Amino acid sequence: MHAHYHAVIMAGGSGTRLWPLSRRRHPKHLLALLESSTLFQSTVARLQGAFPRERVWVVTVREQAQALQSQAPAIPPQNYLPEPAPRGTASVVGLAAVALRHRDPDAVMAVLPSDHYIRHVSLFHRLLEAAYLLAQEGFLVTLGITPTYPATGYGYIQRGEALGIYNDLKAYRVRRFKEKPDQATARQMLAEGGHSWNSGMFVWRADAILAEIRRQMPDLATALDEIAAAWGTPQQESVLARVWPGLRTETVDYGVMEGAEKVAVIPAQGLGWSDVGSWESLFDILPADADGNILRGGEHVSIDARDNLVFVQNGQHRKLVAVLGVENVVVVDTEDALLVCSRDQAQRVKEIVQRLEKEGKEAYL
Amino acid sequence: MHAHYHAVIMAGGSGTRLWPLSRRRHPKHLLALLESSTLFQSTVARLQGAFPRERVWVVTVREQAQALQSQAPAIPPQNYLPEPAPRGTASVVGLAAVALRHRDPDAVMAVLPSDHYIRHVSLFHRLLEAAYLLAQEGFLVTLGITPTYPATGYGYIQRGEALGIYNDLKAYRVRRFKEKPDQATARQMLAEGGHSWNSGMFVWRADAILAEIRRQMPDLATALDEIAAAWGTPQQESVLARVWPGLRTETVDYGVMEGAEKVAVIPAQGLGWSDVGSWESLFDILPADADGNILRGGEHVSIDARDNLVFVQNGQHRKLVAVLGVENVVVVDTEDALLVCSRDQAQRVKEIVQRLEKEGKEAYL
Repeated sequence: MHAHYHAVIMAGGSGTRLWPLSRRRHPKHLLALLESSTLFQSTVARLQGAFPRERVWVVTVREQAQALQSQAPAIPPQNYLPEPAPRGTASVVGLAAVALRHRDPDAVMAVLPSDHYIRHVSLFHRLLEAAYLLAQEGFLVTLGITPTYPATGYGYIQRGEALGIYNDLKAYRVRRFKEKPDQATARQMLAEGGHSWNSGMFVWRADAILAEIRRQMPDLATALDEIAAAWGTPQQESVLARVWPGLRTETVDYGVMEGAEKVAVIPAQGLGWSDVGSWESLFDILPADADGNILRGGEHVSIDARDNLVFVQNGQHRKLVAVLGVENVVVVDTEDALLVCSRDQAQRVKEIVQRLEKEGKEAYL
Repeated sequence: MHAHYHAVIMAGGSGTRLWPLSRRRHPKHLLALLESSTLFQSTVARLQGAFPRERVWVVTVREQAQALQSQAPAIPPQNYLPEPAPRGTASVVGLAAVALRHRDPDAVMAVLPSDHYIRHVSLFHRLLEAAYLLAQEGFLVTLGITPTYPATGYGYIQRGEALGIYNDLKAYRVRRFKEKPDQATARQMLAEGGHSWNSGMFVWRADAILAEIRRQMPDLATALDEIAAAWGTPQQESVLARVWPGLRTETVDYGVMEGAEKVAVIPAQGLGWSDVGSWESLFDILPADADGNILRGGEHVSIDARDNLVFVQNGQHRKLVAVLGVENVVVVDTEDALLVCSRDQAQRVKEIVQRLEKEGKEAYL
């Protein structure tokens, strides 16, 4: 892709929604959940052929930097940008924009979560290319996903006027961002049309996002100015360490996108995208047997069992899981913790994590 | 109890219905399933105060003899009667009768499975005493359990004419033995009254059961004659080894009881008995929390989960099991195998074992 196009992978999260597989020290993007490679490695691999490795960046927290570098050694070490502490995606995006502009004042950056799944990589590349073209015109571009069912786990984007065709894909102004809806609202939006899921993937010029941050989050802009002034100097680390902890934690969606002026969406259909946001989401991604059972890892016996997900942690390959007479159940077995939950309650796994925190059962977090 | 009263514990079975906890090498009666002691140990303990240890006998297969002796060292070694190979309870009962008569020609023997649960021990002793009194009159006495629900997992006994009161308990002639019924038949029998569950516990004079064997199973009687002639001589082992393998495998219920002439039943109410015949049966035995969940072994978190049984094998005390949004599910976790099944299908666990056998997955048997 064009010499000013960069990709920034956001890899700092912890994530509790895939407990007991994801843990504090084994966050979701570092798990080999779907393939033999981790979600982070798959995210890096997905960019191959589209970007030279010098233009792939990774923002992460210090504790994860080493694990990430060992998983993707081809990315230059100086392209790893360490967040001193988690302060939300608005801060992360600002930091990345500062670092990219330092190297390339005309940088156009894609912001990509490290823990998503995309089945159709070539369509993803086409979509990115379209978004870069539109971003060159100053738009903050969101990659939209055409809904396939009335999901309540995603935010929605309502489109406005058409902006034209970019790389064979239609682009629109964003009319409104909508938070995760209830079931009825989700159904209504699907029936109405004109709505996309918010994928959390964005493309914009580094200077455009910084200008919007300055307009809407002046405190963050001031901090980023200080960081930018010290960037590449011996003071870089000390300024970052001084300024960062005082930042307000805010997402780029709420802090910037919802109030931004030139916001566009390019809806993608058939991308085979998932945020892998819960065990339930794996039903959309992983292949099932004739009875609808998804059986991963270990050994399996299933009798009169339908539409279950049975997931055995790597390294427990001798563990046999037998399911009998159950339907729509998620079973996740790790060495020290086992989850059995109904498929339609899987998004509540975080409540288990909260309970464990409350009861001081640190070993399982 | 009376000097001619003996108790014979039948401890040779393997049992697949509590897989994955019960295994070929860890049969059900050797498991500490309900208490810190094993079912076999509890069976022995239940006889304390009623019998001196010299009159407690154990019939078992050779592979289990050592484990049993170490679990109940108070029983004299010569009271362990080894079955050379499993040939059904008719053969076992015959062998025990031969051994008991050799020591005590007037022996009256209770035949007791080693893997049952009885909550009310004092009532059990009263019931045994009553059965011994009736057996002295030449009856083959079955201990009946007054049904508390239309169980399909037990055989039923229909009572006939009253035989009188023995030790404050009513005794009846047996009118008919009925095999495990379907749900409708079970309901009908409960509505009709006059039916007991067949507990598999029997009391009879050793000579009375041998006479009935001679009448109904002459081949077995001939073999038992040979064994009796050699019993206590240096040829005991070699005769047993020669004669035993040729025996037909038959249960005492079908082979003897159904066709016997003087058969009685003493129905017991409120004994708190269970044959612990499936994971489902534990719901009747083990205490549940306020949500109806039975949580044994390991650590537990349950959220919006009701009426489940979660059983973690001893030795896995650090394993945490979280159940979320599921009802009437049985979860049994062992080091190498995990069972997740619906409560009402729990009696089909043996199908899992059959599947494992068929697929040659010996490690899990």
